[in-house]
Amino acid sequence: MSGSNAKQAKADEFEMQKAFEVIGDVQNDIDRFNEQASEEILQVEQKYNKLRQPHYKKRSELISKIPSFWISVFLNHPQLSSCLDQNDENILQHLKRVDVEEHEDIKSGYSIKFTFDKNPYFENDSIVKEYSVTESSETQCKSTPIRWKNEGKNNQSATSRKTDGDISSSVTRKRSHDHEGSNEHGAFMTWFTDTTGETGNEEFGEVIKDDIFVNPLQYYLAATTNDEEEGSAGENEEEEEEEEDPEGKDDEQE
Amino acid sequence: MSGSNAKQAKADEFEMQKAFEVIGDVQNDIDRFNEQASEEILQVEQKYNKLRQPHYKKRSELISKIPSFWISVFLNHPQLSSCLDQNDENILQHLKRVDVEEHEDIKSGYSIKFTFDKNPYFENDSIVKEYSVTESSETQCKSTPIRWKNEGKNNQSATSRKTDGDISSSVTRKRSHDHEGSNEHGAFMTWFTDTTGETGNEEFGEVIKDDIFVNPLQYYLAATTNDEEEGSAGENEEEEEEEEDPEGKDDEQE
Repeated sequence: MSGSNAKQAKADEFEMQKAFEVIGDVQNDIDRFNEQASEEILQVEQKYNKLRQPHYKKRSELISKIPSFWISVFLNHPQLSSCLDQNDENILQHLKRVDVEEHEDIKSGYSIKFTFDKNPYFENDSIVKEYSVTESSETQCKSTPIRWKNEGKNNQSATSRKTDGDISSSVTRKRSHDHEGSNEHGAFMTWFTDTTGETGNEEFGEVIKDDIFVNPLQYYLAATTNDEEEGSAGENEEEEEEEEDPEGKDDEQE
Repeated sequence: MSGSNAKQAKADEFEMQKAFEVIGDVQNDIDRFNEQASEEILQVEQKYNKLRQPHYKKRSELISKIPSFWISVFLNHPQLSSCLDQNDENILQHLKRVDVEEHEDIKSGYSIKFTFDKNPYFENDSIVKEYSVTESSETQCKSTPIRWKNEGKNNQSATSRKTDGDISSSVTRKRSHDHEGSNEHGAFMTWFTDTTGETGNEEFGEVIKDDIFVNPLQYYLAATTNDEEEGSAGENEEEEEEEEDPEGKDDEQE
């Protein structure tokens, strides 16, 4: 009995081995369908990406004429608003355009271009944060080196604790691998300049690309329609609704 | 000066109002493209869903012949294994088939059918957990009422703390809104019977559908290939590899 059991077990094992091979084959068929599906979905996305492009561009140009549009959007966004501090607000006041561009093949990455008005903080007109996906599926990230103005740095208040020599001595800073100054820029600029993905704000890029950029207007309008919520968009609501005192803030920058 | 400023502000506001309207129009165009893209992607998914179906079915039948396949998969899965306890293992030993079916239109939900061998715990041959998305985008969930066997209940050890009258008095239990007995079933059965989404294991469904079901074989094989990892799949590896003692566990159930 024990001998025939062992024989049976061997036969069973052989059967199982064969079964696994067939399961593997079937799995390969399924995998192939999955790949084909992904490929077709990608094509759909690429097609609509092209179709949307001119509309995004038009929207971006129109938005650039609305004062404080982007800072309002950011401050009204549930995730971003809780991360931004006064330093961010000071800088993002000057943010005029946000343009997201997916790489031609989409799955390999995207870039976000931030265009600024002339501002007291840095020389760059526009700065670009670019995410790319390597062959080995790792996400890499690059960002335009910020050419900080010294005055701008000194203007910044709040969390500015460190004032090391290296900051005031170099007007043009290379890619910000230096974390030393990052605390001084607020969460947004820390995210922007970081290329290591270790600031704890890595999701900023995806929030901007997949949520804000899809429909920024809704967040802008949230300030005027959502009166129950207090605080976050305060400054901006004033600009929208205070008609009695139009001299106030208007010529602050121009 | 103040008067002309006020006039200018009014004019600006009118311009802004117009700009918002145009932005709204452009946004509508973008939204329409997004909807069309979603629709086309859905069609691709539906097409491949149909194409994959017979292969899933074939795979499921083949797998049903491998003893302890699904319990091994669950115990090798990084997320599930850490949730399952001895009660789950006892029951899932008898799990023979797992079949995931997306609703015809996919976006409205899916169901997972668990088919069991005859077992000492409940009368059902198969039990189904179904998620559906309502018109208002809420997720609802239903599950087959389990017809527990008393013996089965009593066989279960471990976390069984409550033995209220209501359990032994009703052989047929209605949809398990009663949380009282849930601790006794382990995480899996608690998840299965819960329709409120409050067990803290709501992700089980998505893990099974989007990860395990896509390629269960990889998790099954992880037990035999990944020897560095200890513990989680111990029992099963024994069944696979102990050839010297084939009489041992085999006739435990049949």
